[in-house]
Amino acid sequence: MGALVFYSEFDDPTEWSDALKACLPELDVRVYPDVGNPDDVRYVLAWKPPAGFFAPFKNLQLVVNLGAGVDSLTGRDDLPEVPICRLSDPGMVALMRSYVTFAVIRYARDMPDFEAAKRRKEWHYIHPTPLDRIRVGVLGLGALGSAVARGLAEQGFDVRGWDLSPKVIEGVTTVSDPTQWAGFLGDLDILVNMMPLTAGTRGLINAEVFAALTPGTKFVNASRGDVVDEPALIAALQSGQVGAATLDVFIKEPLEPNHPFWQMENVYITPHLASITVPTSAAKDVAESIRRVNGGGAPLHQIYPKAGF
Amino acid sequence: MGALVFYSEFDDPTEWSDALKACLPELDVRVYPDVGNPDDVRYVLAWKPPAGFFAPFKNLQLVVNLGAGVDSLTGRDDLPEVPICRLSDPGMVALMRSYVTFAVIRYARDMPDFEAAKRRKEWHYIHPTPLDRIRVGVLGLGALGSAVARGLAEQGFDVRGWDLSPKVIEGVTTVSDPTQWAGFLGDLDILVNMMPLTAGTRGLINAEVFAALTPGTKFVNASRGDVVDEPALIAALQSGQVGAATLDVFIKEPLEPNHPFWQMENVYITPHLASITVPTSAAKDVAESIRRVNGGGAPLHQIYPKAGF
Ligand SMILES: NC(=O)c1ccc[n+]([C@@H]2O[C@H](COP(=O)([O-])OP(=O)(O)OC[C@H]3O[C@@H](n4cnc5c(N)ncnc54)[C@H](OP(=O)(O)O)[C@@H]3O)[C@@H](O)[C@H]2O)c1
Ligand SMILES: NC(=O)c1ccc[n+]([C@@H]2O[C@H](COP(=O)([O-])OP(=O)(O)OC[C@H]3O[C@@H](n4cnc5c(N)ncnc54)[C@H](OP(=O)(O)O)[C@@H]3O)[C@@H](O)[C@H]2O)c1
Repeated sequence: MGALVFYSEFDDPTEWSDALKACLPELDVRVYPDVGNPDDVRYVLAWKPPAGFFAPFKNLQLVVNLGAGVDSLTGRDDLPEVPICRLSDPGMVALMRSYVTFAVIRYARDMPDFEAAKRRKEWHYIHPTPLDRIRVGVLGLGALGSAVARGLAEQGFDVRGWDLSPKVIEGVTTVSDPTQWAGFLGDLDILVNMMPLTAGTRGLINAEVFAALTPGTKFVNASRGDVVDEPALIAALQSGQVGAATLDVFIKEPLEPNHPFWQMENVYITPHLASITVPTSAAKDVAESIRRVNGGGAPLHQIYPKAGF
Repeated sequence: MGALVFYSEFDDPTEWSDALKACLPELDVRVYPDVGNPDDVRYVLAWKPPAGFFAPFKNLQLVVNLGAGVDSLTGRDDLPEVPICRLSDPGMVALMRSYVTFAVIRYARDMPDFEAAKRRKEWHYIHPTPLDRIRVGVLGLGALGSAVARGLAEQGFDVRGWDLSPKVIEGVTTVSDPTQWAGFLGDLDILVNMMPLTAGTRGLINAEVFAALTPGTKFVNASRGDVVDEPALIAALQSGQVGAATLDVFIKEPLEPNHPFWQMENVYITPHLASITVPTSAAKDVAESIRRVNGGGAPLHQIYPKAGF
């Protein structure tokens, strides 16, 4: 079976070793820098390893990216010529779905008004809007975006999804025809960004996009800060063109103490934790990829970093 | 088919007439006090009609209570001897589910901490807890409570439900054995009250219940204020025994301006709107009951106000 090398500055190696061994007791898990004989290493599970990391491992068969975002790999020129996979993790999906569901319900149920009324000590009734009259648009229908869209539809919202390629999601109207882009944006109450950061999405959500929205549309960004033109978002929030925003990700993180978002009443800020990998639920998937590669097959969820996805 | 009389000081008669006529075009809908000849009246759809309201309608066959809570009927001694029903309304279910889902995710995802950090303009990272490690207990598994419990289980929470009689709900561990009450309460992160107000539930959630919780457990009340002993809740919130509370309902509504809840940082207040009846979705159900009674059958969702449920 061979050895796996684990590398991450963010994730707990003990938790991961335990979770992997629970699935594959015969796997030899080594935590970087204690890699032992590099020739034993057949699998790497890593998040943002340093340049040249892969070079010593001559018998490598599989690299698993410890996270959903592959933008951390797309710029590298030192990737080995072996299958590269992303994690698929039901625990991560549930966390992301809960984050976006929270942000969407908060706007749908007028919660910012009640938060303000609480500060004024005022009983301020607003008649609820039935959920099926609230239109939510999700940009990017990948592993996370599609689960988010389906979850919102199950809650009872009127959900529409946008993606580069046509997608089928139960209960969700999906669109991928570029001629319908402006119409898609103009017919929403809440816009959710779930697009990955790629050459094609960097700065994609810009002043033109905000101008295409119905005035007052709410915005939720839970994928990557660089997909959004921040100065354009600030201007749209100040003019009221965007009514409010819930932001988990930013161009520069941690968000600087003097960043205008901190001052804005209509911005809800969380510190990049909409979702994380959950070792106990993700390890099953890594173990299955190792089993498949070990048996001469293809791993799960292969990605192609040079193509940017 | 005969005539229906509509009575409510809260609901829009035009919206209801339109919704009913869309389902039953031949129904003669009359809005109180314009009831015409009382002998034509065969159905009543009403919310808290005045005492003696039913007496003139000699040919009455059905009363539909315009709402889910039947506590407004249980005290009356002027109810006619015809079937009395409650509304079942998918729109109302979706609203209640969204309210409780919001409150539960807010605690599960540490949102109050991020709200406070925002005020301090501070990037304050807290590693997320996987949802399946968060234990949510739902008290009362009726039409709304069971939908709330199932929805939370679908989100990925560890959900337990409590009811007087045994209930089966997919993904939810249900308990109704009184000897397990203290154990049920002591093993939760978040407690949600969905019990109706009855002689048996008035003041049921009292100091003893709060003392049985693990210190810091969060509390959500979306059913009726009188089910909770408010002074005991205030004391538990002040001592930290209850970590925080989201409250939609209160013993006295509107909540008085000098009520201690307004001052408490760890209390989230909404003005009794966790859910409402949605005419377009509820009318289908009323129409079906009318059709059944008209055909000599029994209506849907019959209730027995003298028994208190
Ligand atoms: N905030 C957090 O804590 C957190 C946690 C985890 C992940 N994330 C972020 O969430 C992002 C989404 O995750 P995922 O797992 O759903 O990614 P994914 O499975 O790679 O899916 C990305 C989706 O976006 C689509 N897409 C790419 N470019 C597009 C464009 N220009 N216009 C429209 N659609 C486009 C892709 O379309 P095709 O299928 O047609 O290529 C794909 O369906 C990740 O990239 C990551 O950055 C954030
Ligand atoms: N805040 C709002 O905006 C709002 C809106 C709508 C409704 N509500 C409230 O929500 C409440 C619940 O609605 P629902 O439609 O789910 O009511 P429901 O269908 O009448 O169900 C009530 C459930 O509670 C159980 N129960 C009664 N007494 C109990 C006790 N002492 N211990 C444990 N369980 C007990 C009943 O058990 P059995 O089946 O065994 O009798 C039943 O399963 C309503 O009564 C209403 O007051 C609030």
